[in-house]
Amino acid sequence: MAPGFVQGNLAILPKAIAGDFLRFAQLNPKPCPIIGTSAPGDWRIPELGEDLDIRTDIPRYRVWKNGEIVAEPENIKDVWRDDLVAFVIGCSFSFEEALMADGIEMRHIKLNKTVPMFRTSIETKPAGPFHGPMVTSMRPMTPANAIRAVQITTRFPSVHGAPVHIGKPEMIGIKDIMKPEWGDGVPIGDDEIPVFWACGVTPQSVIMTAKPDFCITHYPGTMLVTDRKNTEFAIM
Amino acid sequence: MAPGFVQGNLAILPKAIAGDFLRFAQLNPKPCPIIGTSAPGDWRIPELGEDLDIRTDIPRYRVWKNGEIVAEPENIKDVWRDDLVAFVIGCSFSFEEALMADGIEMRHIKLNKTVPMFRTSIETKPAGPFHGPMVTSMRPMTPANAIRAVQITTRFPSVHGAPVHIGKPEMIGIKDIMKPEWGDGVPIGDDEIPVFWACGVTPQSVIMTAKPDFCITHYPGTMLVTDRKNTEFAIM
Repeated sequence: MAPGFVQGNLAILPKAIAGDFLRFAQLNPKPCPIIGTSAPGDWRIPELGEDLDIRTDIPRYRVWKNGEIVAEPENIKDVWRDDLVAFVIGCSFSFEEALMADGIEMRHIKLNKTVPMFRTSIETKPAGPFHGPMVTSMRPMTPANAIRAVQITTRFPSVHGAPVHIGKPEMIGIKDIMKPEWGDGVPIGDDEIPVFWACGVTPQSVIMTAKPDFCITHYPGTMLVTDRKNTEFAIM
Repeated sequence: MAPGFVQGNLAILPKAIAGDFLRFAQLNPKPCPIIGTSAPGDWRIPELGEDLDIRTDIPRYRVWKNGEIVAEPENIKDVWRDDLVAFVIGCSFSFEEALMADGIEMRHIKLNKTVPMFRTSIETKPAGPFHGPMVTSMRPMTPANAIRAVQITTRFPSVHGAPVHIGKPEMIGIKDIMKPEWGDGVPIGDDEIPVFWACGVTPQSVIMTAKPDFCITHYPGTMLVTDRKNTEFAIM
């Protein structure tokens, strides 16, 4: 969908805990890179799209109360509140495009699967009610491509940036590389090493653990498509 | 010796094959990064030091004829010729300083050994009489430090730049990681991976293979100390 344009994960939280979440993001920029925020009660995020309305511009939402899904509507006009703050979080689609443009194969895309994602033993830095393990996504590649991928993704700090780990899954608490907690297992060749990036599922998982009395996220797979180009997010 | 200042390997070749060597360097910038050259017959290289005299400014030299060492003098005024071209080749000391400044341990330095260097199955791109395998140096580090090391050394393309390989020695033809062809073996921890950089021994080895009728190199361990700072060589 919309190749070339930045997509983002959505988290909408009441103002009462939005400050803690922003501090969590500041402390954990690799798993939780915020690319846009709204003012409390405001559904606009002009830095991501001039006419963006965060209540209607995502195909489907999930509304949560105390950690339980209570609705999956196609817009959130009815449940919008004056104290809600929207956060849009960068996503690996942006850096994957840059890697593929350089000729590096994304195994999960080639196999038409979802990228494998793993809960790790790396702890995020806590802020208020938000805490928990970092989730990583894994892409197998040759050593030469892994080195190139570090260089390329370093240029994109606002969409997870450089890898957080390389080569030894057991060092970050991963028991079976073919059994990810989210997404699909993908084969790793004898001439390849697994490369791990901090993943946007981390803030989702952390919010679910915090069980806020109210929050809204995007429905899995239907992210926000912004008006910003992936290439704009390269720092050099 | 002279911390903070760029050191370089020396190769002095007759003009007849200097062009081929320059082309070899252009084709293989990672193992053969040239940081200074003289005009034919000229012993000055002002870009590396205003009052530099390449005939006297190295503590000891090696003079070669047809691939054999014929002398190891402390200066080369007597053997200097009007057709000689001097090449100074960047060295890993410069990037090691940047890595250590970032808190990354150099195992061989900690153990007071010479960095382990391996002949690999990676072929250099040939030019004229110059051809042969790439030699790499190896430094063990944790995965997180390996990622950081890719970022840091990418900033120093003129002193070998980013690693050429990471993690799987057998993929580049290395049979026993504890038995390097040059330097000393160093232990690799269970939580570490070997990281390989292109090494300045490559051009030395390639020149020895070409057996030019005449050439001069520095005596091992006595390199040229320049007036340039290591930090000047960072591209960003």
